[in-house]
Amino acid sequence: MTPDPGPARDALAQRYRRVRAHTLALAEPLTPEDQCVQSMPDASPSKWHQAHTSWFFETLVLQPLAADYRVFDPGYAYLFNSYYEALGPRHPRPQRGLLSRPALAEVQAYRRHVDQALLRLLADAPPPQWVGLAALTELGLQHEQQHQELLLTDALHLLSCHPQLPAYLPLPRQAPATAPLPEARWLPHPGGLVELGADAAGPAFAFDNETPRHRHWLAPFEIADRLVSQGDYARFVDAGGYRDPALWLSEGWSLVQTQDWRAPLYWREGREGWQVFGLHGLQPLDPAAPVLNLSYHEAWAYAQWAGARLPTEAEWERAARDLPGMRQIYDQAWQWTRSAYGPYPGFRPLAGAAAEYNGKFMVGQMVLRGGSLATPAGHSRASYRNFFPAATRWQFAGLRLARDLV
Amino acid sequence: MTPDPGPARDALAQRYRRVRAHTLALAEPLTPEDQCVQSMPDASPSKWHQAHTSWFFETLVLQPLAADYRVFDPGYAYLFNSYYEALGPRHPRPQRGLLSRPALAEVQAYRRHVDQALLRLLADAPPPQWVGLAALTELGLQHEQQHQELLLTDALHLLSCHPQLPAYLPLPRQAPATAPLPEARWLPHPGGLVELGADAAGPAFAFDNETPRHRHWLAPFEIADRLVSQGDYARFVDAGGYRDPALWLSEGWSLVQTQDWRAPLYWREGREGWQVFGLHGLQPLDPAAPVLNLSYHEAWAYAQWAGARLPTEAEWERAARDLPGMRQIYDQAWQWTRSAYGPYPGFRPLAGAAAEYNGKFMVGQMVLRGGSLATPAGHSRASYRNFFPAATRWQFAGLRLARDLV
Amino acid sequence: MTPDPGPARDALAQRYRRVRAHTLALAEPLTPEDQCVQSMPDASPSKWHQAHTSWFFETLVLQPLAADYRVFDPGYAYLFNSYYEALGPRHPRPQRGLLSRPALAEVQAYRRHVDQALLRLLADAPPPQWVGLAALTELGLQHEQQHQELLLTDALHLLSCHPQLPAYLPLPRQAPATAPLPEARWLPHPGGLVELGADAAGPAFAFDNETPRHRHWLAPFEIADRLVSQGDYARFVDAGGYRDPALWLSEGWSLVQTQDWRAPLYWREGREGWQVFGLHGLQPLDPAAPVLNLSYHEAWAYAQWAGARLPTEAEWERAARDLPGMRQIYDQAWQWTRSAYGPYPGFRPLAGAAAEYNGKFMVGQMVLRGGSLATPAGHSRASYRNFFPAATRWQFAGLRLARDLV
Amino acid sequence: MTPDPGPARDALAQRYRRVRAHTLALAEPLTPEDQCVQSMPDASPSKWHQAHTSWFFETLVLQPLAADYRVFDPGYAYLFNSYYEALGPRHPRPQRGLLSRPALAEVQAYRRHVDQALLRLLADAPPPQWVGLAALTELGLQHEQQHQELLLTDALHLLSCHPQLPAYLPLPRQAPATAPLPEARWLPHPGGLVELGADAAGPAFAFDNETPRHRHWLAPFEIADRLVSQGDYARFVDAGGYRDPALWLSEGWSLVQTQDWRAPLYWREGREGWQVFGLHGLQPLDPAAPVLNLSYHEAWAYAQWAGARLPTEAEWERAARDLPGMRQIYDQAWQWTRSAYGPYPGFRPLAGAAAEYNGKFMVGQMVLRGGSLATPAGHSRASYRNFFPAATRWQFAGLRLARDLV
Repeated sequence: MTPDPGPARDALAQRYRRVRAHTLALAEPLTPEDQCVQSMPDASPSKWHQAHTSWFFETLVLQPLAADYRVFDPGYAYLFNSYYEALGPRHPRPQRGLLSRPALAEVQAYRRHVDQALLRLLADAPPPQWVGLAALTELGLQHEQQHQELLLTDALHLLSCHPQLPAYLPLPRQAPATAPLPEARWLPHPGGLVELGADAAGPAFAFDNETPRHRHWLAPFEIADRLVSQGDYARFVDAGGYRDPALWLSEGWSLVQTQDWRAPLYWREGREGWQVFGLHGLQPLDPAAPVLNLSYHEAWAYAQWAGARLPTEAEWERAARDLPGMRQIYDQAWQWTRSAYGPYPGFRPLAGAAAEYNGKFMVGQMVLRGGSLATPAGHSRASYRNFFPAATRWQFAGLRLARDLV
Repeated sequence: MTPDPGPARDALAQRYRRVRAHTLALAEPLTPEDQCVQSMPDASPSKWHQAHTSWFFETLVLQPLAADYRVFDPGYAYLFNSYYEALGPRHPRPQRGLLSRPALAEVQAYRRHVDQALLRLLADAPPPQWVGLAALTELGLQHEQQHQELLLTDALHLLSCHPQLPAYLPLPRQAPATAPLPEARWLPHPGGLVELGADAAGPAFAFDNETPRHRHWLAPFEIADRLVSQGDYARFVDAGGYRDPALWLSEGWSLVQTQDWRAPLYWREGREGWQVFGLHGLQPLDPAAPVLNLSYHEAWAYAQWAGARLPTEAEWERAARDLPGMRQIYDQAWQWTRSAYGPYPGFRPLAGAAAEYNGKFMVGQMVLRGGSLATPAGHSRASYRNFFPAATRWQFAGLRLARDLV
Repeated sequence: MTPDPGPARDALAQRYRRVRAHTLALAEPLTPEDQCVQSMPDASPSKWHQAHTSWFFETLVLQPLAADYRVFDPGYAYLFNSYYEALGPRHPRPQRGLLSRPALAEVQAYRRHVDQALLRLLADAPPPQWVGLAALTELGLQHEQQHQELLLTDALHLLSCHPQLPAYLPLPRQAPATAPLPEARWLPHPGGLVELGADAAGPAFAFDNETPRHRHWLAPFEIADRLVSQGDYARFVDAGGYRDPALWLSEGWSLVQTQDWRAPLYWREGREGWQVFGLHGLQPLDPAAPVLNLSYHEAWAYAQWAGARLPTEAEWERAARDLPGMRQIYDQAWQWTRSAYGPYPGFRPLAGAAAEYNGKFMVGQMVLRGGSLATPAGHSRASYRNFFPAATRWQFAGLRLARDLV
Repeated sequence: MTPDPGPARDALAQRYRRVRAHTLALAEPLTPEDQCVQSMPDASPSKWHQAHTSWFFETLVLQPLAADYRVFDPGYAYLFNSYYEALGPRHPRPQRGLLSRPALAEVQAYRRHVDQALLRLLADAPPPQWVGLAALTELGLQHEQQHQELLLTDALHLLSCHPQLPAYLPLPRQAPATAPLPEARWLPHPGGLVELGADAAGPAFAFDNETPRHRHWLAPFEIADRLVSQGDYARFVDAGGYRDPALWLSEGWSLVQTQDWRAPLYWREGREGWQVFGLHGLQPLDPAAPVLNLSYHEAWAYAQWAGARLPTEAEWERAARDLPGMRQIYDQAWQWTRSAYGPYPGFRPLAGAAAEYNGKFMVGQMVLRGGSLATPAGHSRASYRNFFPAATRWQFAGLRLARDLV
């Protein structure tokens, strides 16, 4: 007999409300026009993120499980399906900015419609449905949290394209840390035959690409206890790091030249030195803050210049689990690893349409680990695998150094 | 002594108010998001049109002539200068859609600010200034009227990019004419040594590119009394016109193939035949209505197929002046001519920044004559020269046939 | 009764041999590899020119008129048809450089095969065929002469792409003229109602685009007796001509910026001043020699800077016919006119496949008049209309100034 | 005391002569024009390969070690440096086809010049120099062998671009195997803690990217004893494999659609079924021959369809070493693995300019293992790591299936 999920119902409903409300709060400082424009093919309008996450709940949870659910607008499936081939044709990603309609207010009504139905389903679903419903709802919430971070990265990119560099949040930031940052400390790890990844059947949520838990042989290494800072990185820039091909991978050096890279994406050279554009607008470089908005190639080149290297994702994960001295793990910047994104040994994607969630992107991208200042609290974990192409710069991505230990 | 321009002041002020208000009325059916998005590099957001036309008055009229004028926002010069090199650097045209800020409401405030200052200047300018002021104001109004048409063509293009094809004006149109359209009649013109163009010093407004009035030798010709209709054009399409290279110029045939042209830009093939997207949404083809949204190449190919040709701009202008039977001259569709856009003999551009208004585009474009359903009433005239590249399709452009008369 | 064409047969056969031999002589300084490579989509390999001109005789003369003609290789129709839609599918123009086969020696054998058949046909064709045969043969020879010039312009472009700038003809040129060139003289022309173009039924050869002879009203003008020289043009360059947007058409200024134009295509800045790459390799600028390898836009900008303008093609043609003082008409540089290439009043293209020869290009190009140092002697004439897009730079094109005469 | 390297001298000199002569033999069936043309940016002309490999010996061996060596042509460093930033600027890769000069005969003279100097150096180098000389010479020979394979893949690509599909070797192939190929057998491997890679200090040559030898934990798996055949792959194609997005990675499906992939690169559909273009021209599909010219994406999709997967490079290497039943390892087709190309734990690139040989490409590519019909005999080995981007199709690449063993 299925146990009564009463308390779990309440907890999940509360979590659902909180996560969904956070999306609206993040969009709040943006005008309707800000939320409609697409600044580049890789980015999506804020309005689109809000609709797409609702479509995800509607399509993967409500339509299969809520018998009486009424689809809000049948045309939305075409507009707000992101990349699920199994769920039918969709509006091309590079043209999401052409969707001036539905207006923001209609998208907000769509969110409310989905919320009401989802909360009713959470309350009323018969116990035998509960496990599946809870799993899919949790997947939808994790998905929404990923889009919360993307909403911020995409909004920041849009604002960075405006000649006047408007701030997302115009409030003055607290004064930057003036105390010089201590040198990073190297934390040694003995390596050996370790376990990596998450258990698909475990109690905590994990995406399919974190599974199965598996063994891995690790050579001894050491890893920095903190991230590379803006101050560290500025020394690399000022030392000519962007002009020395010996520091770069071939593809990276080609990007430096063809796209005229001279500093991280949002750095601007001012009369009084570097300024950095971020969620609070253009601010003087803060030497103690982690460097952000780096491509893999810039992270690689910095590590070469520093006489170190990027960690593998296996090293990173074991360090996060095993080394108490590790700082700035989940809350500052995603950390590029030297590992290409691929399937773990024995990987099986989720069943159904969700199979396309992670598995079909397992080529041509690099793994980032950790989490950033834009990652919702509690969303990430030691086994979490973020991934982007090596040339990507608009994410909140930085780096942590590692070295062989021999 | 300069005569008192009192009545002229009132007339111009009234005309100013009317023209400016018409812009707002045209934008009214569009949402703020509709007015912000740029659907292609050649098109501009509606909001941008509204700001740019205000910047034109601010920069070419108020700043030189209104001593105490306070610029609304110094940053707008960069954002809303279209192409005037002499007036400083500007935001790149293909990126106008990235300007989510200023919001529409701010642009509307900008318009009011300019309107108040301009109307005050019209009322108060000392008589010696009047002639120059009136001429520049009139230039600004003609300019605004051109942007009124562009606002509609650009809005229609944006809506045409939306998978749901929303209507600019959802109101039902009156029933399409069902009476078969009579065959076009050929109106003969004897040619000879004629005069073309406008007198720069004449009483009526004319753009510099219509001047000077000059002599031209014209061979005898005949010209159709009406435009080519949707019904005419559908016969060309159905007869395989888009599949026969012999009908097309080389560049046109290349466009047919590389861009997969099969019908005019806004025609869609439905179960019950052709449908045409326009300001009232997607409607069944109206055989009696003029065909619209053709490129020069499609107009050329149709004329070849029909055993005729496009008129030259000289033929068109003399026909418009001399032949009483000419219909559908200014109010249905711009009419492609076979004349490339170039300077008239003795052409001199306007002085100052306005020199860039027309003259620097005198290569690589074809002349269109007449006026369209989107041209403000009274804006066009017999000497008016519109011009676009031959591949342009999103304008309200159609054609009228001509033939040699021998 | 058809008169016996005996002497005409001999004359035409002799002319045929001479023209065809000249093509081979022009290719002589080039290696087989030089003759195979295509340096850009607009240029063709020398080998391709040699084969295409033979295919033209084979397809337009021998196949229709020589009953027993055996096609050299049926596959060549696909490889060497340039742009004749009526003659079937063809190898894409931008990929002509991929045709490493047939080898040069095979193309030379193809030429001999065609020559033998053509000369036999010229000798043996029955008198009733003669007029048609002579006209088509002459068309083929004129066509071959056009390709002789293209062979040189295309070979020079290829050599200009090589980092070592090899000379087409390494022989030292005679010393450049050191005597300062006299100022250009202005030759006045009264204008009036003039005749332009060639008579299609006249005794001399003319392309269809030069016909029909027609009347044209011409305002009075004056025109320079000589071309703009390298010395003249260097003053424009040194005065910042490539940095002043006010001198350029909008499209031209865009090209200056996006393609980083700083001087004519083949000028190189050296320690001792400008050097010019030409058929004899890289040579010091010769102030007295006409400037070459200009786009329309550069010619336009120079004329603006010089306080003059480009002539219309009508002005040019009447000046060439009427003004005895005109120098450097046909033998130095094609001269950009401000006239767009279009059909003359009453224009009818040739019949059959030759209809595509000139007519289908009558949009988007500008007319050049005169002839260049690479134009075969006797090929050009006062009514000759050459045409290229305004951005074209690799032709032997320069300019001659004109001015209104008021 | 350094031992006398006399016998090693003779052996290396003989090997040098043999390898260098093989390059010429491979180029022999190609005309000078074939050897000059570049069919796409990724491919190089055969002539360029022959010059570049000579430049490699000249620059990395002769100039540092042969005191009296006279550089053949100082301009060649610019023309024939491939990608070594440390060795100065170079001709852009996509423009190698513009190098009609030096002619093939000059490149052959260059080869002889280098050969004479290298053979003299091998004979005369003082014993203390020998070890370094022998290592660099061997590197140069391995490099030349890599270019031998590229010479063939690039020549085949060029010939495939010709509308007449000429054969590299027109000789008739022996009749295709008609006996049906037996089903592939699955060979099990127990996995465990294994060693991978080559010992940098070992007696046999290995590239730096194969080192260091290191430990790796391997889960049990099984692997097919033979490659996927043309017959196997044809069943996938005929079953709609190129039309089912569920089988493809996201990037692969995008390529299928945008580049209209319907079968492997060199398959052509004929009246009697598939034909395959290869070194012997267009031939009927041979069901028993390994499928070639696949991208990683096509290999991945086939494996999905077959209910299997691609092996990792670790699995492949251990299978090649440990499983006696493995067939078609080195002599038929490179085999895509699911492993991205990256540095082994503890990887250090070679010293000096050779550091750029392999290390700077360690992102964005996938590893292929084995060797192909175009790989020189003896060149490959179990630890050999070939690598190409996942979209690459013009290499002799196929696949071998693997599966988890649980």
